[in-house]
Amino acid sequence: MTTQNIYFFGDDNTEGDSSMKSLLGGKGANLAEMARIDLPVPPGFTITTDVCTRFQEVGGLPDGLMDDVRASIARLEKTTGKTFGGGSHPLLVSVRSGAPISMPGMMDTVLNLGLNSAVRDSMEELSGSGRFVRDSHRRFIQMFGNVVKGLDGEAFEHELSAVKKDRGVENDYDLSAEDLDEVIRRYMAVYEGQAGESFPEDPWDQLEAAIHAVFQSWGNPRAITYRRLNRISDDLGTAVNVQAMAYGNLGNDCGTGVGFTRDPSNGTREFYGEYLVNAQGEDVVAGIRTPLPVRAERAAELDLAGQSLQETFPAVFDQLMGLAAQLEKHYKDVQDIEFTIEHERLYLLQTRTAKRTGHAWLISQTAMVDEGLIEKSDAVTRVPADALTQILAPTLNPSEANRARHDGRLLAIGLNAGPGAAQGTIAFTADDAAERTNQGQKVILVREETTPEDIHGMDAAQGILTARGGLTSHAAVVARGMGKPCVVGCSSIRIDSERNVLIADGREFSADDLITIDGTTGEVFAGTIDISASEVLQVHIEKTRSADDSDICQAFDQILNWADDIRTMGIRTNADTPKDSEVAIALGAEGIGLCRTEHMFFDTDRIRAMRQMILSRTPEEREAALRQIEPMQAEDFRGIFRAMGSRPVTIRTLDPPLHEFLPHGGPEVEELAQSLGMSAAAIHTRIDELREMNPMLGHRGCRLGLMYPQITRMQARAIITAALDVAAEGIDVHPEIMIPLVGNVQELSLQKEEVIREAEALFEERGQTVDYMLGTMIEVPRAALTADEVAAEATFFSFGTNDLTQMTLGVSRDDAGSFLPDYVQYGIYPADPFASIDTSGVGILMQMAVDKGRQARPDIKLGICGEHGGDPSSIQFCAKLGLHYVSCSPYRVPIARLAAAQAALASK
Amino acid sequence: MTTQNIYFFGDDNTEGDSSMKSLLGGKGANLAEMARIDLPVPPGFTITTDVCTRFQEVGGLPDGLMDDVRASIARLEKTTGKTFGGGSHPLLVSVRSGAPISMPGMMDTVLNLGLNSAVRDSMEELSGSGRFVRDSHRRFIQMFGNVVKGLDGEAFEHELSAVKKDRGVENDYDLSAEDLDEVIRRYMAVYEGQAGESFPEDPWDQLEAAIHAVFQSWGNPRAITYRRLNRISDDLGTAVNVQAMAYGNLGNDCGTGVGFTRDPSNGTREFYGEYLVNAQGEDVVAGIRTPLPVRAERAAELDLAGQSLQETFPAVFDQLMGLAAQLEKHYKDVQDIEFTIEHERLYLLQTRTAKRTGHAWLISQTAMVDEGLIEKSDAVTRVPADALTQILAPTLNPSEANRARHDGRLLAIGLNAGPGAAQGTIAFTADDAAERTNQGQKVILVREETTPEDIHGMDAAQGILTARGGLTSHAAVVARGMGKPCVVGCSSIRIDSERNVLIADGREFSADDLITIDGTTGEVFAGTIDISASEVLQVHIEKTRSADDSDICQAFDQILNWADDIRTMGIRTNADTPKDSEVAIALGAEGIGLCRTEHMFFDTDRIRAMRQMILSRTPEEREAALRQIEPMQAEDFRGIFRAMGSRPVTIRTLDPPLHEFLPHGGPEVEELAQSLGMSAAAIHTRIDELREMNPMLGHRGCRLGLMYPQITRMQARAIITAALDVAAEGIDVHPEIMIPLVGNVQELSLQKEEVIREAEALFEERGQTVDYMLGTMIEVPRAALTADEVAAEATFFSFGTNDLTQMTLGVSRDDAGSFLPDYVQYGIYPADPFASIDTSGVGILMQMAVDKGRQARPDIKLGICGEHGGDPSSIQFCAKLGLHYVSCSPYRVPIARLAAAQAALASK
Repeated sequence: MTTQNIYFFGDDNTEGDSSMKSLLGGKGANLAEMARIDLPVPPGFTITTDVCTRFQEVGGLPDGLMDDVRASIARLEKTTGKTFGGGSHPLLVSVRSGAPISMPGMMDTVLNLGLNSAVRDSMEELSGSGRFVRDSHRRFIQMFGNVVKGLDGEAFEHELSAVKKDRGVENDYDLSAEDLDEVIRRYMAVYEGQAGESFPEDPWDQLEAAIHAVFQSWGNPRAITYRRLNRISDDLGTAVNVQAMAYGNLGNDCGTGVGFTRDPSNGTREFYGEYLVNAQGEDVVAGIRTPLPVRAERAAELDLAGQSLQETFPAVFDQLMGLAAQLEKHYKDVQDIEFTIEHERLYLLQTRTAKRTGHAWLISQTAMVDEGLIEKSDAVTRVPADALTQILAPTLNPSEANRARHDGRLLAIGLNAGPGAAQGTIAFTADDAAERTNQGQKVILVREETTPEDIHGMDAAQGILTARGGLTSHAAVVARGMGKPCVVGCSSIRIDSERNVLIADGREFSADDLITIDGTTGEVFAGTIDISASEVLQVHIEKTRSADDSDICQAFDQILNWADDIRTMGIRTNADTPKDSEVAIALGAEGIGLCRTEHMFFDTDRIRAMRQMILSRTPEEREAALRQIEPMQAEDFRGIFRAMGSRPVTIRTLDPPLHEFLPHGGPEVEELAQSLGMSAAAIHTRIDELREMNPMLGHRGCRLGLMYPQITRMQARAIITAALDVAAEGIDVHPEIMIPLVGNVQELSLQKEEVIREAEALFEERGQTVDYMLGTMIEVPRAALTADEVAAEATFFSFGTNDLTQMTLGVSRDDAGSFLPDYVQYGIYPADPFASIDTSGVGILMQMAVDKGRQARPDIKLGICGEHGGDPSSIQFCAKLGLHYVSCSPYRVPIARLAAAQAALASK
Repeated sequence: MTTQNIYFFGDDNTEGDSSMKSLLGGKGANLAEMARIDLPVPPGFTITTDVCTRFQEVGGLPDGLMDDVRASIARLEKTTGKTFGGGSHPLLVSVRSGAPISMPGMMDTVLNLGLNSAVRDSMEELSGSGRFVRDSHRRFIQMFGNVVKGLDGEAFEHELSAVKKDRGVENDYDLSAEDLDEVIRRYMAVYEGQAGESFPEDPWDQLEAAIHAVFQSWGNPRAITYRRLNRISDDLGTAVNVQAMAYGNLGNDCGTGVGFTRDPSNGTREFYGEYLVNAQGEDVVAGIRTPLPVRAERAAELDLAGQSLQETFPAVFDQLMGLAAQLEKHYKDVQDIEFTIEHERLYLLQTRTAKRTGHAWLISQTAMVDEGLIEKSDAVTRVPADALTQILAPTLNPSEANRARHDGRLLAIGLNAGPGAAQGTIAFTADDAAERTNQGQKVILVREETTPEDIHGMDAAQGILTARGGLTSHAAVVARGMGKPCVVGCSSIRIDSERNVLIADGREFSADDLITIDGTTGEVFAGTIDISASEVLQVHIEKTRSADDSDICQAFDQILNWADDIRTMGIRTNADTPKDSEVAIALGAEGIGLCRTEHMFFDTDRIRAMRQMILSRTPEEREAALRQIEPMQAEDFRGIFRAMGSRPVTIRTLDPPLHEFLPHGGPEVEELAQSLGMSAAAIHTRIDELREMNPMLGHRGCRLGLMYPQITRMQARAIITAALDVAAEGIDVHPEIMIPLVGNVQELSLQKEEVIREAEALFEERGQTVDYMLGTMIEVPRAALTADEVAAEATFFSFGTNDLTQMTLGVSRDDAGSFLPDYVQYGIYPADPFASIDTSGVGILMQMAVDKGRQARPDIKLGICGEHGGDPSSIQFCAKLGLHYVSCSPYRVPIARLAAAQAALASK
């Protein structure tokens, strides 16, 4: 049996199609598909990945391959009417690699192959430009020498500079045809000197060498490392694509351009494109000449009437519009195309699904459903989560931001921790942020890193900027929960907290200076840039706008309604206040998956009682302090229960280490000492006692409740009291009490006893009961390992994947900044494990916990409340595990709804 | 079918034996066994645990039980010739609970049951003492009221005090018979007032109530909690033992005593015991009268000639010696007995395996093998690990220490972190400790807690005392590694580091004051107490004594030689220096399981280069600094390889976070800045950058080697260079390079590439090769979960159970002091999981790692190098997992050898 080494495309008998990626590579299969549906792609052929495999075995091109290549070139000559290596219409080709999976490290592209002294004359005649032909030639020598032969590229650049200097010119395009002849002479000499042979004049030699180089590059160290890190088999191999060149720069009846079948910025159903007359593809991108619009209407808007493609090449324009319609019909999505016009003949060089703004995603997909082009489920499947993030965030005016990036206003780039743009003057402390906001100022809170004590300042500020911390640092987590723009880990800035000065990009900024941050990109700018608010939030949260005015809000609602019909997993939210709860409900939350009781303690009037509790030396003192806190907690819970109505509310008992509640600074300690009638020394001693080497693994979570059962009792009473009160108002409350940081079932049993005892006592006292659930977080590896034991005592599990990831990987998210980014870059982890669940490590523990939990208690309720609950790929994994719900911060709820629907569709 | 409710013992037809623990409880089965082999135990009977189960079901004594009890009492009357509740020889009994598993929380003991006004006269006649009978009576009322009826004990005490005050006497025994009549009257009134009924005069009522109380106590809350925490089934039930009382205080032909069949302090084959004439058991213990020796020889030594049991009751003495021989023959171990002589008749009240010193353990067991009493394997099975710990540690003179405990010299008690006693003046800094030791002083290093920078001071000091930290804190781990006496977590002491003063027990101690610490008990004393050095170490390590002089060293060697013949697991050691290696070999180590390369960097002349490396800003600077370190490391490794010879040596690449190497204090930073020609500010900045929130989970382990591959390369070169050098000397070296903190196989692969590249380069350069292994620690949960992937790249796994426990449980051992001790006390964990492997949590991960590792690489070598490697119960678990070796600190090697043999015997 003989295998077919080569697949031809672009004549009447295209041999491949888009299903043949493993044999033809991604690029080859796509070119074949375009040719197959009669798009005008320049013809060519693809040498299969099988040939690559045989190449690796024998260490060279397999016998007979070049015979097949010659036959295919002959077929190409016939199709194009051009001649390879000569004739009045010389056939030049491009040679490109194309593996089944896109990967860097391999030989990329050689253009203009086939060029030599022999064909230059015909080329010159065809183009009417001796300069153009010579410039193409010298570029080909350089590209071939560098890419195919691996010669030192600098040596060529050096000669080019020398000739320019010699001629006293600055730019490449200032060199004359004669100058370029000199450059070519010198290039030939460089080639000969380095390669030890003269430059191949024979186009067949050129072609064989290029094919050889592509296959050889599959085995180069960079490609091998990339494959190993990304777990790609060495056996896949790469294909080689040989394609006829099309020229947009052979005269004024030629041109080149790019375009989108719909507007990529707003999704409107209008072709959006730009082109240049007598130019090559790279000229459009290079920005030396300003491209012209494709559509006449657009040209008129830009005072370029008469210069559009529609006006200059009306026939080509009509053909292009026809092609655009055909492409959308075939690919069923907005396409991003590259085209070339060679002597008024249109060639399509590439088509791919268009990148677009969130706005364009929603508008285009809902429209395509209306047009009957796609199904609702297609729309739901395709809209990326980032699109919703963009829609929900305030955004910088794009063109102004772009200018700011180039005119020196861009100060630094940190991690994009909370999407959206914000601006204001600088507040260096939380108190200052709160105070100045009260006075009506807009401020950006700028901190080294934030702590729970900064909450009021974060809440007051327009946005948050920190110099340290990663995407799951305190600042990042809290900001996302609040829906605040936030940039963290901006390590190039310095904060001089003594002088209250921010030092960035070598400049100093004081509290009076305005800055703008973009939490979607991580950028920090000096001064202000126009910001547009999210229309969806204006409609749903701020209620300052009606949905009728807002196309984008209508599209948003439509997509999410479709998603809700499709998804099977519930969506809850992490919310600590009635306000959070209301936002989350407005965005579609079906319950609270995590209410952190500790955030309630940082209010100025409450922290004192909390501190008094911590500083108590006896259980009696502790209980007295807790008695002050209990009514405050009950009031919080009443507010949340009322906001949530009949939706379930999971409340976690106290979790953070106690030292987080104590003051850090000397003056604050003095103040506290006075107000409590204690000595400052005693408070300092207690602070020292509570100091921990590794607070993450210290005295926190249920360990607090076990050592100080009074705390758990107080919280149980506050929750049950509030539930009874709100139930008496006729609301069908569903509290779920959750014990954190359980690693051993005994911890849960002991805490459960405390809760049940208080609940029973209250039921008896009030002659009224309320249903409540009692469960635990699964966030300590040991709890997952012994989930069968734990499930015997818990009616629900909620995965706390932040801590579970920290402990399973042995990585503190606060300290991971010094290595984790590199880990992701090296491919050790495919993504930041704190952003997307590490399914092959942490995921094993989660699967164990689900299996063992269900084995011990088949109807156990399973959810997740870590940061991963708002991450689409993690949500997909949760769906695979069969969790009943995911819980995420309020502003991530829409994303979770969409991702859950996508997961449901994917599992079909 | 009728079940037998009651089992009788002590007449010619004893019905139970020691195999019937589940039916008769531990105590009942043991009493039956003693009776069965004709030991003179007072007769009695046991009501079965089955009856308890029925009691719990019906909530009371089953029908017909009291009939069986009456029949058994009749049988007891017949056997003893006494009458229950009357007659000239009244039968009094004790009633005791006895579950199959010893457990607190249940009703314990009622003595003298059957006493009432009616039998008092006969009792008085028999004893000749009205005072004795009345005192017994009032005690019985109090015990019955308190234990059986649950009445308030204080009310009785209150009346007793009132009568004493009234009579103007101080001690109970100063009360006359008439006074006691008054006490009894008042007790009766208290009983009646609280119980609402008069005290039962009828002995049958007394007996029924006592039996009822025992069964009821099985269900009391404390017992239930205990069972739940210790996972004991509620269905086990308790038995009730009713036994005839025997009196040692009925006259001068009576007595009571305790004794050991061999000397419990040195193991000599001589009965060792004490007794009192005309006394009850509690009198011997109470210490009001001084007991007399059993043996005449001993009496002569104490100037008590003529007063020994041997001389006073020669027939009883002979009987006792016969019994001792019989007991040893039956129980095949040294027995600890209680006996009572009632009118020259000897009763054995209890026999149990004797507690004894380490010395006595070794001497008695080796002697028993010589005597043919037991097999070598019995001796190996029985010697507890603690015995060896004692033998290897210097010890305080026991009687002097005892005096010191009572005369105010005992200052504090901390955690017994490193066994042995040490004394010296106080050094408050490591430098001071080193300097004064150089000047010939003996010092105890006293620190808040130690850091790696203190190593030289710890090494110099006689012992270490810290105020903070747990049993696996830095001080504890390092001290055990060095074999130094160490007390940690001594929270009642304070160190005023400004004034250089230690404050303990309200007193201040300066650098000139002498203190003594006992790391075996955790005690800290003021001043000096005689210390005896370990004979075994004198023979094997210090070589200042010959084994021929030392019985104990001979017994030690004998037991361990037997253990070596039996065990199947290898024993390695954790050693970082040639000196450690030599000690470990002398104590039987077969290799190094963990050589920590970082400890080599804290020497004064090396730390500078290390700091320079850390402070480098470019790879080139870093490499330059590392080039200084490389020869030092190579020299270290040569020393270790030479010391270890052909034994395998596992070397771990750099593990601790870099900030551990940087100076902390300002002056030290200044000094460093000068010596490196940097600004102090730059160093402070770097220190700040390296500061971590949770260093345990931070930038350490292989994460260092991945970010700074130069370090791994340098270490690989140093190891391979040293191995080649030593191999060239004709030694068959076996280096095993171990990569720490791997959580993802890619980390290992990348580090492995670095090592292999350096090794290959050196092999080529030197034209010589050496075999080496490359493996990893399993200390991150994720590594265990993905052990199949990891094993594909590792030829060995070494469990780092310290970190594995920290991460799996989410507990920082440095911070666990505030809750872990309570956790162990509550029974949440059966033992400190940092001392003994948490087999039901961490153990699951270890089992997964072993299974998955073997599945991917069947011949993978498996070991453990955490602190648990020296813990007997953990060693047993390791044996069950099928590990090839355990590795522990040098001074734990003998214990590990013994424990491994015990594990091998247990698995048979």
